[in-house]
Amino acid sequence: MLRTNTCGELSLEHVNQEVVLCGWVQRIRDKGGMIWLDLRDRYGLTQLLFEEGKTPSQVLETARSLGREFVISAKGIVIERIAKNDKIATGAIEIRVSELTVLNAAKLPPFLIEDETDGGDDIRMKYRYLDLRRNNVRKNLQLRHQVARYTRAYLDELDFIEVETPVLIKSTPEGARDFVVPSRMNPGEFYALPQSPQTFKQLLMVAGFDRYYQIVKCFRDEDLRADRQPEFTQIDCEMSFVTQEDVLNTFEGLIRNLFSKVKGIELPEVPRMTYADAMRLYGSDKPDIRFDMQFAELKGENQDLTSGKGFGVFDDAELVVGICAPGCAVYTRKQIDELTDWIKRPQIGAKGLVYVRYNADGSIKSSVDKFYSEPDIKKWVDAFNAKPGDLILLMSGQADKTRKQLNELRLEMGSRLGLRNPDEYRVLWVLDFPLLEYGEAENRWFAMHHPFTSPKPEDIALLDGNLGQIRANAYDMVINGVEVGGGSVRIFEKELQQKMFEILGFSPQEAQEQFGFLMNAFEFGAPPHAGIAFGFDRLCSIFGGADSIRDFIAFPKNNSGRDVMIDSPSTISEGQLKELSIQTAL
Amino acid sequence: MLRTNTCGELSLEHVNQEVVLCGWVQRIRDKGGMIWLDLRDRYGLTQLLFEEGKTPSQVLETARSLGREFVISAKGIVIERIAKNDKIATGAIEIRVSELTVLNAAKLPPFLIEDETDGGDDIRMKYRYLDLRRNNVRKNLQLRHQVARYTRAYLDELDFIEVETPVLIKSTPEGARDFVVPSRMNPGEFYALPQSPQTFKQLLMVAGFDRYYQIVKCFRDEDLRADRQPEFTQIDCEMSFVTQEDVLNTFEGLIRNLFSKVKGIELPEVPRMTYADAMRLYGSDKPDIRFDMQFAELKGENQDLTSGKGFGVFDDAELVVGICAPGCAVYTRKQIDELTDWIKRPQIGAKGLVYVRYNADGSIKSSVDKFYSEPDIKKWVDAFNAKPGDLILLMSGQADKTRKQLNELRLEMGSRLGLRNPDEYRVLWVLDFPLLEYGEAENRWFAMHHPFTSPKPEDIALLDGNLGQIRANAYDMVINGVEVGGGSVRIFEKELQQKMFEILGFSPQEAQEQFGFLMNAFEFGAPPHAGIAFGFDRLCSIFGGADSIRDFIAFPKNNSGRDVMIDSPSTISEGQLKELSIQTAL
Repeated sequence: MLRTNTCGELSLEHVNQEVVLCGWVQRIRDKGGMIWLDLRDRYGLTQLLFEEGKTPSQVLETARSLGREFVISAKGIVIERIAKNDKIATGAIEIRVSELTVLNAAKLPPFLIEDETDGGDDIRMKYRYLDLRRNNVRKNLQLRHQVARYTRAYLDELDFIEVETPVLIKSTPEGARDFVVPSRMNPGEFYALPQSPQTFKQLLMVAGFDRYYQIVKCFRDEDLRADRQPEFTQIDCEMSFVTQEDVLNTFEGLIRNLFSKVKGIELPEVPRMTYADAMRLYGSDKPDIRFDMQFAELKGENQDLTSGKGFGVFDDAELVVGICAPGCAVYTRKQIDELTDWIKRPQIGAKGLVYVRYNADGSIKSSVDKFYSEPDIKKWVDAFNAKPGDLILLMSGQADKTRKQLNELRLEMGSRLGLRNPDEYRVLWVLDFPLLEYGEAENRWFAMHHPFTSPKPEDIALLDGNLGQIRANAYDMVINGVEVGGGSVRIFEKELQQKMFEILGFSPQEAQEQFGFLMNAFEFGAPPHAGIAFGFDRLCSIFGGADSIRDFIAFPKNNSGRDVMIDSPSTISEGQLKELSIQTAL
Repeated sequence: MLRTNTCGELSLEHVNQEVVLCGWVQRIRDKGGMIWLDLRDRYGLTQLLFEEGKTPSQVLETARSLGREFVISAKGIVIERIAKNDKIATGAIEIRVSELTVLNAAKLPPFLIEDETDGGDDIRMKYRYLDLRRNNVRKNLQLRHQVARYTRAYLDELDFIEVETPVLIKSTPEGARDFVVPSRMNPGEFYALPQSPQTFKQLLMVAGFDRYYQIVKCFRDEDLRADRQPEFTQIDCEMSFVTQEDVLNTFEGLIRNLFSKVKGIELPEVPRMTYADAMRLYGSDKPDIRFDMQFAELKGENQDLTSGKGFGVFDDAELVVGICAPGCAVYTRKQIDELTDWIKRPQIGAKGLVYVRYNADGSIKSSVDKFYSEPDIKKWVDAFNAKPGDLILLMSGQADKTRKQLNELRLEMGSRLGLRNPDEYRVLWVLDFPLLEYGEAENRWFAMHHPFTSPKPEDIALLDGNLGQIRANAYDMVINGVEVGGGSVRIFEKELQQKMFEILGFSPQEAQEQFGFLMNAFEFGAPPHAGIAFGFDRLCSIFGGADSIRDFIAFPKNNSGRDVMIDSPSTISEGQLKELSIQTAL
C-alpha cells in the first residue's frame, strides 16, 4: 500500500511511530514559520506539521506549493499535539512530516468541498465526483451500504435466497411506461427494462424457491419529480406457504431490525390501520401518525350537525370534515386568512376554510356565527373533543376531494406546530386496500396495487358485482407519512388470474399473449404466496433524515432524466441505429 | 405460516409431534392398502404415510386423487419409519397423515422433475420455472447466493463500500457493442446500458471512496456463445493508494477465502506468470496449469534444431514447437492420424502434426525420419526432457498462430490423459499483458484491456516508439484454464489519458466528447488507483463444477438473445414507438 495508515485512525498510542499517510489537502495555515495542513481521506482528517528549521527545506517548499484538493503522500513521525482538537478522532496528535510527495495536483474546485458548500445544485450535479467528497454526501452512501448489509443479514438468517432476475425482459401494457431496448439480433423487437421483478419472483415461488429477495434496480419512464428517478432500487421479497400475517410479521421484523442496527432505535410493535380508516381519519393512505389531529366529520355517513341552518356551502356539501389544532385559538384573523390562502393554492385547490375558535376562556367564535347558534357550534366542539384554546378548521365538499385537501392542511398544521419531529419515527401498516380503482379518463378499472394481487377471500363474490368494494389482501408500510413499501398476497390460481385480466379489460388473447407464461405456470403446481417490495432509496433517505432520495444515490439524474456529469442521454451513430434496425423520428 | 415445519428438518426427535407440511408431490406408491408419498420442498423430502383402516377414508381418497407436482398441505403425526432411508435427512421418520388439503392441482409436467430429467434444453428453457424445481438446478442458485454472501462479507471486512452505479449511462465507442435505450424526455437521444461500471468506479476513487465494490449486472450486445449472455454479473472492485501488488494480494485473498468457505479447499499461494511466459510455454494467456506439458521450441528465437535438413515445412516455419505427452509412445498410427485430423478441423485449422515416439525401449521413431538422423532427433528429445515411453507432438508455422493451435492440442491431450481433474483447482495470476494490440482489419491500435489501463512506468517511454512492446500493469486471474477476472492499475493523470486516446485514434475533440468527464475529473485531484472485475456467473460455474454459466443464472437467454419462457424480445406498440420518437427500419 502507498500508506501505512488512514487519516482517521492515529491517536496518542501511535506517538513516535513513523507513518505514511495519503489523501487530499483540506486546508493549510502558514503562519510564523509553521505550516499546519489538514489531510483528508474517507476515514477522517489528520493534521500534518511543517516547521521552519526542523522540516527539510525542500519539503517546506513543496508544502507551500500545495493547493486545496491536491493529492499527496506524507511520511513523518506521530507527535502529541499541544493544542488538542476534541472535534476530530485524530485531534490529539499530528504528523511531523519528513517526506512529502505530490501524487496529483488539483485545479481549484468549482465549489467548496466542506459540509457547508457554496455550490448550487446544478454545479454539484455536474461535478458529482467532487460533491461526493463532502462528508455528508459520502456518509449518505455509507449509510446506504449499511442498510443493504443489515437487510441482507436479516433475510439470509431467515433462509431467504437472493436471486438475480433479468434486466432485459418484455414490455407489458399494465403499469407505468417501460424503458425499451431494441434487439439487434431480433430486428423490430424490443426488450423492456423491469418496473419490478414481479412476475419473475412469482415464477420463483412456482419453482419452489420458497423465500426470495433481491436488492435490485428497477426502471420507470415517468415524468420526474424531486423524489423520483428513472432508475431506482427495491428490496424485493416473496414468500410461499404464508398468510398476510406472516408477511407483515417478517417485514415488520426487518424494519425494526434496521432501526435498531442503523439508528439504535428500538421500535414498538407496528400498529395497523385499514385503508378505509386511514382515508376517514387522515384523508390519506399514508398518514403521518407522529401527531394526532384526526379528522372528525360534522356531516357525513353517520351524522349531520350542519345542514338546514341556511349555510349553503355546508348544506350542499357531501362531507363537512375538520381537524382540531391544539392551542391555536390564539391565531389571529390574519393568520387564518393566510392559512385559507394556503389551501386555496392550485396545488391543493380548496374553496375555503371555516374556523371555530374555542377560546381559553370557554367562549366560542366562528366564521359562520351568522348561520349557527352557540349550542349548534358547541355540538361541533364536542364532536372534536376540543379543549379550550383549540382551533377547529373545517372544510367541505365532495367527500374524497375534501379529505385529500384536509390531509394537506393537517400535515401543514402539524409542521407549523412542530409536531413532525424528524428524529421521531412512527411506522404504520395500512391494510385492506381496494383491489380496483376506476379510471374516469380511461373509463375502465385498474388494479390499485397490480393485477397479481389477490382479493380478500370474503370479497371474491363481489368480482361479479360491485368491483369498487372489493378489498385486496394488500398492505403498505408507512413511516412518518411516507410510503416505504407495499405488497400483497398474490393470486395463484389460473382461473382467478384470468378473471382479473378480464376485469382489467384484457381480451383472453391479450392476456395470454402478455401474461400467458405466468398463467401457464399456475397450472403446474403454484403454491400460495405473498410478497412485498420496499423502496430502497426512500428507506435510506428516511434513515438519513433527508427529504430527497437523490442524496442517497451516487450518480442521480436530474428532472429531465439527464446525467449532466457524463452528459447522457446522447445521440448515437447512424451505424448503431442501422445495426439495431431503428431510426429516430423527430 | 401454513406449515409448522419444512420437508427437510424432521427427525427421530420429533416423533409423536403433530406437524403440518406443505410442498409438492414428488412421487406416490400405492400398494397393499398403504400409500407412501414423497413430499418435496426446497429443504428436502419427507415421506407421508396413508394406511387403509387407519387413515380417514376421505383423506385416503384425496391422496389417491393426487398427481405429480400437486401442491398439498398435510397434517399428521411424526412416527418412526420401519424401513429407514439413509439417503435423505428425514429418512428415519414419516408422517401418518390425518388431514390433507390440495392447495393447487398440477398438470403433468412436460418433463421429469428429477435430478436426471428426460427434458431437452429447449423445453427446459421454456418451462424454466419447472426446471428450477430440480435439485441440481436449484442448488446452483443457492451456491450463487453463498458465493455472493461470502464475497460481500470478505470485502465489507476490508472496508470496501458497495456503491450502486447507474444502469442508464452513455454510449461510448470503445469496447463491445452497447445496448441502447431511447429517451422519451430527450427525443433523438439514447442511454446505453453499461458494459461495466469502469468510469464510474474510477470517479468514485476521484471522489475519495477509497475502496469500492459492487456485484452488478453488465450488458454486451455481442453474438452469443454457450458461455456468454447479453446480461451478466460482475464483482467489480476498485482501490486507491495501492500498487498492483496490493490488488493481487487483496483479491487472491478473496478467491482463497471463497474456496475455503464454499468448497472447503485451502488453496496455496497463487503462482504468477507473465503474459510472455504464458504465451511461450502454453500458447495461451489463460493456461490450464493442472498439468505440465509445457511447450518446447525446437526452432525459435533461441535455437534452431530443425533447419537445413531438407524438411521444407520446418525450414519455412517461423516456429517449430511441441509438447511431450507422457506415456503416449504407445499411440498407434491410427490414434495419431485421428489427432492430426482433430487439429486440422476448421475450428483449429492446423496444417499437420509431426510426431516423435520415444519408445519404452529407448528407440526413437518419428514421422520425419527421412529428413532427420537419430542424433538430430535425440537433440529434440533432450529439448523436451522426454522420458522413454513419451510421445512428442510438433507443430510449425507462423509463431502466434502455431502457439494457439498447439494450445488446443495440449488441452486436448490433457483431457485425453485425464490430467484435467474437475475436482482439482489451480489458480494463476497472469501479469504484464501488452498495453495495446494491433487490429489488422481496422488498421489501428486497440487497448488490450481498456483505454484506462496504465502502462508499466518503465515502458512509458515506448509510447512514442514501439507500441506493441509496451507492457501494461494489467493482470488476469485464471482458474483451470478459464479467465475468471482481470484488472489493471489505472491511468490517473489527464495528460497520459489524453495520450492514450490519441494512440487509439481519437481526435482530441472526440476524446473530450466521449470521456471529457473523466479527464476533467483527473484535474481535480485524482488518487493513484487500480482495480479488478470478476465474472460472477463464471466464478459460480467453476465452484459448481459446470461448464456453462447458464446453469447458474435463474432466467438465462438462449443463443439468439431470447427468453423463450416469457417470449422476449417482442414487438411494441406504435404508440410506444411514437412516444419514444423512433421507428423500426426493417
